[in-house]
Formats: sequence, structure tokens, C-alpha cells
Amino acid sequence: MNELSSTDATRLHRHPERGLADRAALHALLDEGLVAHVGFAQHGRPFVLPMAYARVGDTLYLHGAKASRLQQHLAAGEPVCVTVTLLDGLVFAKSAFHHSMNYRSAVVLGRGRAVTELREKRRAFEALVEQVSPGRWAACRSMTDAEANATAVVALSLAEASVKQRAGGPVDLAEDLPWPAWSGVVPLRLVAQAPVAAQGLPEDAPVPAPRRW
Amino acid sequence: MNELSSTDATRLHRHPERGLADRAALHALLDEGLVAHVGFAQHGRPFVLPMAYARVGDTLYLHGAKASRLQQHLAAGEPVCVTVTLLDGLVFAKSAFHHSMNYRSAVVLGRGRAVTELREKRRAFEALVEQVSPGRWAACRSMTDAEANATAVVALSLAEASVKQRAGGPVDLAEDLPWPAWSGVVPLRLVAQAPVAAQGLPEDAPVPAPRRW
Repeated sequence: MNELSSTDATRLHRHPERGLADRAALHALLDEGLVAHVGFAQHGRPFVLPMAYARVGDTLYLHGAKASRLQQHLAAGEPVCVTVTLLDGLVFAKSAFHHSMNYRSAVVLGRGRAVTELREKRRAFEALVEQVSPGRWAACRSMTDAEANATAVVALSLAEASVKQRAGGPVDLAEDLPWPAWSGVVPLRLVAQAPVAAQGLPEDAPVPAPRRW
Repeated sequence: MNELSSTDATRLHRHPERGLADRAALHALLDEGLVAHVGFAQHGRPFVLPMAYARVGDTLYLHGAKASRLQQHLAAGEPVCVTVTLLDGLVFAKSAFHHSMNYRSAVVLGRGRAVTELREKRRAFEALVEQVSPGRWAACRSMTDAEANATAVVALSLAEASVKQRAGGPVDLAEDLPWPAWSGVVPLRLVAQAPVAAQGLPEDAPVPAPRRW
């Protein structure tokens, strides 16, 4: 399982040279991201909603209120597409045409599996909290069974997935190079700003560790 | 057209109090974002791909290589869902259960319209470049007709759309407040890092103006 599967659906047609074939790249990208865009079709119409997620091995976990239509749809095993995109930079070329963006993007295809066993559910919740801040699970008040039962968790296998990235500078035509406009890359990063503590917090409470920002 | 339409498909079922009903909020969110997640269904299977986009009035423009399957699908007028999400912060609560994220998210539903008229196409390209950096369109080498013709542009009306956001601090249960863990919000922002100029660039070439990062 070190190579990503290449199925008809995950094979890259545009810019195949941007594809990354190893599973480690998929894992690293998913571990760095915080928000997934989850796509599903109802009556032939597509819907895309942002969701938090977490990865455990080769399984992706999504969670939401049990009563949510999306959760019920995912839990029913309907086809789903989960896409996670990290925007790495803006690529300024000499010509309008060659402007681009640097990014890494993972597309996971599959069918959801409703997680009903409480132990797996708790492991998913732990991963969801740890995805945001390592060590946080141990620091906060853990979940009651009632809370765990109120929340739907859906698992998605990473078996069918692709990873695509663009990196590096602009690709300009030789005849455009003398053009005076600046060209190059403006890297972008998601950066944590000063934390805003909740009211009434003890002064010495340590701020959670950021990992990916 | 100051109020967002509320159709069966865009009505918020979960957390309706997080909905924003005015069109100005939709425009502001779309103008701030850089990447859209575009969902479409083929043979009942959903696919979600990241794309650059731009807004002109109440029209969203997407572009891509003319030969791309996605562009052909969008241009054919199949149903599409375009979602733009801005991650504003991580919400740390006393309990694992009440952790959350602050975000703004727009969901646009509709059917694509292939843009074939060269003038509208050029206006879309200008908007796509200006979305990234205001003033850039005038600074770089403009598009030739051949370049414009090689690129497919699809327009999507903003008529059917919803905006959702979560803002503010954690919502903790009263009995959890004495728990010692830090609680509050860690705001997140997409921030430009030091620009990396392309090789051979004149020293005095001014770096493009950032707007939204």
C-alpha cells in the first residue's frame, strides 16, 4: 500500500506530471490540512460542504450531528468525494495567461461507512481533536457516552485517492521575459494570530500547541 | 437582489442561525477567497476539484484548459456546486465535544454557461487576474486571441446561493468551566511570505500588490 491506486476515476488527465504517486504524500497533505470539501450527489445534483476531518492510518473520519442530512447520506454508503487543498502560493508570470497558483490537493473517492462501535468512534474523536492541536485530547474534558452517541461519525477508506501539486516559479515564454512586470512566487501560509482567551480563564492556562500553522 | 434567495436546496437545516441572508456578505466572501471547490456529478458519482475563480457582479467565472473533462462538463450546463470556504480560526473549548472552527462559507448552486464571446471572456480573465492582485491585469502582458481561445471559461450565476459562518468564542457547559484547559480562539489568516522573484528579474521590478493576505 505504498503506491496510490490509479483507477479510471483518480487518473489525472490534465497535467499528469503534477501527480504524486506515493501514499506518504497523501498522508502528509491530509495531516497538514484542517478543512475538507465533501462532495455528494442527491438526485443527480452535486453538493459540496466544508467539514473538519481526521486521518487514522488509511481511514479518513468525518463527523457531524446525527440528524444532519449530510451525515445520513454519507452513512448510507452513497458515493462521496473528499477533497483537501492547501494553497501554497501565487505564481506571477510576465503574461496574464501564465499566471498560476502553487497548491497541493488530495482527492479521495469512496463510500462512507457509519461508525457505530463506541471504541472506534472515540478513536475518531481523538483524531479529530488531535488534528487541530496535538496533545489537546488529553488536556480537555473527554467525551461522555451521551455526547459520543449524539454525534455521527463516518469513515472513508483512502484506498482510491490521487494527489496533485504545482510547485515552483512561473513558466514564461522566452519572448515575454523582457516584459517589465515582476514575476515570481508569493508563498502563502495559514498563520495563527494572537490567541483570544475565553472570558474568566485562569491567567496561567497554557495555550494549546499549534502544529500546522 | 439584495437578499439571497432561499430555495429548498440552499436553505440551511443545521445551525440556521449561522446563515447570512444578504448578498453583500456573499460578494465579500467570494472577493476574499482565492480557491473554490467545484463539485459535479458524473454517472451519479460526485467529484470535487479546486479551481481559481473570480466574481463579476452576480456572476462567478471559472476557467481551465478547453480539453479538460471538467470544463467540458461545466460548459455543457450540468448542475454544479461551487463552495468557497475561509477558515477564520480554531475554537478550543473546555470539553472535546465543544471544539469547533470559525469559518465563512459560500455555497453556489446552478448550471454553467460556456462563455464564447471574446469580450466577456477577456473580462473574465481580467477578473481572474485581479482577484489575485489588484492592478495586475494592466501590469502584465495581456492575452492574445490565441491564448483566450485556448482557454475555456464557464460562467455561473450567483442567483442560488447561501452563506454560513461561525464566529466568536467557545460555547462551554457551565459545569465544564472550572476545567483547567485553555479555552478560546486561535485566529487563522492566510499570510503572504517573502516573495521569491523569478531568475533574471530586474532589481527594481515592483512586487505586485497583495490585497487579501
